Amino acid sequence: MSDSFKGPTTSRRQFLAGAASVGAGAIAAGSAKAAGDPLITEVQDWASGLGEGVDEVPYSLPIEFESDVIRRNVPWLTADPISSINFTPIHALDGTITPQGCAFERHHSGAIEMRKQDYRLMINGLVDTPLVFTYEDLVRFPRENHVYFCECAANTGMEWAGAQLNGAQFTHGMIHNMEYSGVSLRTILQEAGLDAAGDLKDKWVYVEGADASSNGRSIPMEKALDDCLVAFTANGEALRKEHGYPVRLVVPGWEGNMWIKWLRRIEVTDAPVESREETSKYTDTQEDGTSRKWTWEMDAKSVVTSPSPQSPIKHGSGPLVITGLAWSGRGAIERVDVSLDGGKNWHEARLAAPGEKMAVSRFYLDINWDGTDMLLQSRAIDDTDYVQPTKTQLRDVRGLNSIYHNNCIQTWWVKSSGEAENVEVS
Amino acid sequence: MSDSFKGPTTSRRQFLAGAASVGAGAIAAGSAKAAGDPLITEVQDWASGLGEGVDEVPYSLPIEFESDVIRRNVPWLTADPISSINFTPIHALDGTITPQGCAFERHHSGAIEMRKQDYRLMINGLVDTPLVFTYEDLVRFPRENHVYFCECAANTGMEWAGAQLNGAQFTHGMIHNMEYSGVSLRTILQEAGLDAAGDLKDKWVYVEGADASSNGRSIPMEKALDDCLVAFTANGEALRKEHGYPVRLVVPGWEGNMWIKWLRRIEVTDAPVESREETSKYTDTQEDGTSRKWTWEMDAKSVVTSPSPQSPIKHGSGPLVITGLAWSGRGAIERVDVSLDGGKNWHEARLAAPGEKMAVSRFYLDINWDGTDMLLQSRAIDDTDYVQPTKTQLRDVRGLNSIYHNNCIQTWWVKSSGEAENVEVS
Repeated sequence: MSDSFKGPTTSRRQFLAGAASVGAGAIAAGSAKAAGDPLITEVQDWASGLGEGVDEVPYSLPIEFESDVIRRNVPWLTADPISSINFTPIHALDGTITPQGCAFERHHSGAIEMRKQDYRLMINGLVDTPLVFTYEDLVRFPRENHVYFCECAANTGMEWAGAQLNGAQFTHGMIHNMEYSGVSLRTILQEAGLDAAGDLKDKWVYVEGADASSNGRSIPMEKALDDCLVAFTANGEALRKEHGYPVRLVVPGWEGNMWIKWLRRIEVTDAPVESREETSKYTDTQEDGTSRKWTWEMDAKSVVTSPSPQSPIKHGSGPLVITGLAWSGRGAIERVDVSLDGGKNWHEARLAAPGEKMAVSRFYLDINWDGTDMLLQSRAIDDTDYVQPTKTQLRDVRGLNSIYHNNCIQTWWVKSSGEAENVEVS
Repeated sequence: MSDSFKGPTTSRRQFLAGAASVGAGAIAAGSAKAAGDPLITEVQDWASGLGEGVDEVPYSLPIEFESDVIRRNVPWLTADPISSINFTPIHALDGTITPQGCAFERHHSGAIEMRKQDYRLMINGLVDTPLVFTYEDLVRFPRENHVYFCECAANTGMEWAGAQLNGAQFTHGMIHNMEYSGVSLRTILQEAGLDAAGDLKDKWVYVEGADASSNGRSIPMEKALDDCLVAFTANGEALRKEHGYPVRLVVPGWEGNMWIKWLRRIEVTDAPVESREETSKYTDTQEDGTSRKWTWEMDAKSVVTSPSPQSPIKHGSGPLVITGLAWSGRGAIERVDVSLDGGKNWHEARLAAPGEKMAVSRFYLDINWDGTDMLLQSRAIDDTDYVQPTKTQLRDVRGLNSIYHNNCIQTWWVKSSGEAENVEVS
């Protein structure tokens, strides 16, 4: 693997060979065009005049040529677009941070618009002193910063029944990874006082949003006091409207439905509320027809983002960067393996940085592609030694009729043309 | 300090006291309003209907209420807006990541627009095989991810002569901090082969951009082979137009002028070119009238971003979060101290995360403000034990007529009204 990157001498030899072939060394083949390529030999328009001035765009969007790197929905997935889903264009991104502007959305009654001065957060139930905070109150508490992934429980949900959606954006794009700043939920609960709650071990918090759905969820007190954040900013700036402006809950490693947006109320209770969102929805039906009561933690998962159906190989055989994302709600990613042959042989991928708890890792595998078909897979292993399962392994337990918590190994059939397709291997 | 955050019991006591005073405990005073506050007791419009659907905004901008969190320029700073500067709104951000959309710009001939298919990168000079790469060629090399700050050498430059600009955005906003993905410059140079260059110790690379200014700079080979990146993405997505789409050079820890945008050419040379941008510009005149030949590394620096002139205290006395940014081109931030009295006494601030090499650190100091005037300062110390100097210390060496590389300690006079002003202390 990666023969053309072993050093300058090898590379140059491959360049010389590459100029005459479509095989290894194709990277440098562009140089053959240098003498006659007006894009490098002639002065271009952009080097002959002035570009845009700094007054013109006080807050920019991506350049027009990247207009396909956007959130997309799947119209047939839900009947009502207001209560629907769109997907992060993970096939077109690199690194680990997801820009807020293209980070997936999932709403139960649409994205509402609320001014900071209209924001209120109530803490009630089994607390010593029920409190109502304004936004200005909240930002006076000590703040923390953390990068965390947020994955919808239904991410990859359409794949239970078969290889249905042709692109990493659609199969795995209900995930984003952002740097949050906010106040720990523990701090807020302590401000209201937990003596009245007695033994905290069997206590819960019920959290709900200010939107019409309210999307209420019960969280065990142990998690509430551990690492949950009442967040104000993502990637440095205010949460965008669709991400819960001005305040959302961050529940690291747990399903996105619990990350309540437009957070309105936190009630300390002595039992889970068993709301709609945690009973008829967001629970997993097993092969035997029973449903698992709750599945909060998002198990270790990964996907190759490129090449993939929306990101085909355009340059022919030779050096190829295979890349993707891996994450685990149980902790940090420790290793990612990549298979080119549908899981028969595995190659350890390179993590761009050591894994961080409940944050996305970027992996790379640099290969010298021979131009033949590949069945590309990736397999994540986290620091609890949990190994991402195959689709078959998951189905043995969960059957074909689940929706949520599908963390199976994904397969892309990469054809000799460079195009890729979502397939299943037995 | 921070008395109200010591634990729930203390906090609650302060809350009860706070309800009757403007002193400590004011955080929870909002709760006194709960009974009569229709924003929490009444059903609001946003809880009675549907919000925006996911189809409507495939790529979002910040919510309209945040329309003041934008890049701003200072019209009198340069005559021609095309060759001018704008500033990151650091006073309004939290965390460490700077969103691309509001990350400062500095152009020498405006921001140009180039398609990926029109992009070419030439490697020439003392290389074994001169090469021209297309964009598609470049993305076939192994990629890396790193978060780095980029600071313009002229950041804080107006402060040499006095306290001139009233806001952290203007005094310190020529900085951004993003996660880059790209290919190491070393890889690109090795692809062209460096045997022809002989002893690399006295060799240089001359790098230039595709815009009209070309903005050429010489970089010692040691740095070029160390940690420079040929970057394609920032914070996960393609570089925006103003940040060098499709390819910019990243020169970690070194002045922003060397981070060539729209990177067009890399020439291996046996001496620095001594271009305009590294002789008459971007050099530092000393007190004795001579100029230091080059100053590449950005020394350790910090600034309190809030409270600050553009981010006054709105809530009166009591718990107050003091926060800011620190960074060093020499390595990682190890410690930040904050003074409330113009440098007489220092308090160690809390770093939100351990410092990372050539990346911004966020610091916090949580205090119980007594409502009297403060002379707020911050002082960064990096892992080489370099300590950010006072303005007086810098002026003793550099005089009053410098422009670049001002990393002095900044002072904000925070008044009892909560408003703040840029001042100097002797």
